[in-house]
Amino acid sequence: MLYLIGLGLGDVKDITVKGMEIIKKCSRVYLEAYTSILTVGKEALEEFYGRELILADREMVEQEAEEILKDADVADVAFLVVGDPFGATTHSDLVLRAVKAGISYRVIHNASIMNAVGCCGLQLYNFGETVSVVFWTDTWKPESFYDKIKRNRLNGMHTLCLLDIKVKEQSVENLIKGRKIYEPPRYMSVNQASEQLLEIIQNRRGQSEELAISEDTICVGLSRVGAEDQKILAGPLKEMASAELGGPLHSMIISGHLHPLEIDMLKLFAVSEASFENLKMTDSSTFTS
Amino acid sequence: MLYLIGLGLGDVKDITVKGMEIIKKCSRVYLEAYTSILTVGKEALEEFYGRELILADREMVEQEAEEILKDADVADVAFLVVGDPFGATTHSDLVLRAVKAGISYRVIHNASIMNAVGCCGLQLYNFGETVSVVFWTDTWKPESFYDKIKRNRLNGMHTLCLLDIKVKEQSVENLIKGRKIYEPPRYMSVNQASEQLLEIIQNRRGQSEELAISEDTICVGLSRVGAEDQKILAGPLKEMASAELGGPLHSMIISGHLHPLEIDMLKLFAVSEASFENLKMTDSSTFTS
Repeated sequence: MLYLIGLGLGDVKDITVKGMEIIKKCSRVYLEAYTSILTVGKEALEEFYGRELILADREMVEQEAEEILKDADVADVAFLVVGDPFGATTHSDLVLRAVKAGISYRVIHNASIMNAVGCCGLQLYNFGETVSVVFWTDTWKPESFYDKIKRNRLNGMHTLCLLDIKVKEQSVENLIKGRKIYEPPRYMSVNQASEQLLEIIQNRRGQSEELAISEDTICVGLSRVGAEDQKILAGPLKEMASAELGGPLHSMIISGHLHPLEIDMLKLFAVSEASFENLKMTDSSTFTS
Repeated sequence: MLYLIGLGLGDVKDITVKGMEIIKKCSRVYLEAYTSILTVGKEALEEFYGRELILADREMVEQEAEEILKDADVADVAFLVVGDPFGATTHSDLVLRAVKAGISYRVIHNASIMNAVGCCGLQLYNFGETVSVVFWTDTWKPESFYDKIKRNRLNGMHTLCLLDIKVKEQSVENLIKGRKIYEPPRYMSVNQASEQLLEIIQNRRGQSEELAISEDTICVGLSRVGAEDQKILAGPLKEMASAELGGPLHSMIISGHLHPLEIDMLKLFAVSEASFENLKMTDSSTFTS
């Protein structure tokens, strides 16, 4: 049996009792290590489970899936994923390979950023399409996520923005020379995402496009959701560019139509009270339904 | 401290290790009992936690919140919620009351139906607004959820349909006579939701409206997600009207644009293989992006 087990979002103790029991009985336990991170590392997990974990990076999962699935028809193998196995990153490919090889599988669910963001008080059923915000380079500045946010806003929907994670990246030089030397991991902050969004707004304004977002649109910045030191800040986009949320991982929400109860919740996390007092005047589109 | 603790979706062992530890140290532990159910009852939970639970029905949470929050500034109180505390039903109101009373709170997240539906292989970031499908009566047949599904479909998005739950309902007679006698709980099945949707399609067709959904639109029926005996079936809407998914809780997804990998996953759960073979011909809008 192949078990895909969600670890939740915070630390070692966010695994479910069921997940924990399964890990203890499996022959091999892999830890998926390229799409997200916990606030603790592999060693802390190993100590808590009382067993060794095999780190599975993207290369391994994509190119050596047979290795992970080896003997899983007769033995139990666990594949641990931060969050939920079918959350922000899905592991459909591994499941399909397992089924093709005649291996049964089971999913042990957990919280993922896709549902835990509800803790800021914005209601999950009012979210539209989720977008990914990637790191811009000097020559590549994709704006497609703005158009998706715009579409959500026009429909009154909130938008969850998943912020870029760069793990095991090679510099161009190392890539050309074939050296497997990797750059330190990079995690996009809410500040960076806000700055990119503000730049897009400026560009579009130059093109006299009708804007669906402004500097005053209410946004929510979240960091380390589910961890002891999680932080949530709510305020206009312009304030998010300098909001202090601390270490990774960060996520961001661009609000759509706000229900009074949602506004009351967001006020608990307001960067400044003033930004919510003038809500109606500064951002009328917030009240589109 | 007020702890809002998610129990996950399946049975007693779907709570997190952290949630379990907190329950053990709290002075009082409430179990929210009106928005969802686990496959096990209060007694099984009490036995597993080794302590008594106080059942909190809607009336209590809405009218006697002070009772729940009593002394929570000096003692620890836990409020258990099936799924995640900010999943399909949010408990913002309780949080706001706590904060107003100077009581700190903490959320222990878990899987909710809002993210666990990813197990069918449809990618969570491609979902639009979530809709609720309510039980129709002879005189009240709201169709508003159809319009939301339509909007999602036109944008290529999938739609998660949360199906109605009726708990502690009184018959008109008992209501008038002021008798606190309650009807047995009712949980909407995928069959019932499909029939309502098919009826709406018929009505709209009569009005010569361009349809966003047809009898051939690929849907997914899910029951008891996260439990040992969970069941997933995928196929055209017309087949969902008779798909056998067993006991509650049921959820349903109306697909939007399907990515090839999503189709491969859905095929694992196909009611009949034929329905996916002719996918392109029978439901061209499925491929709108």
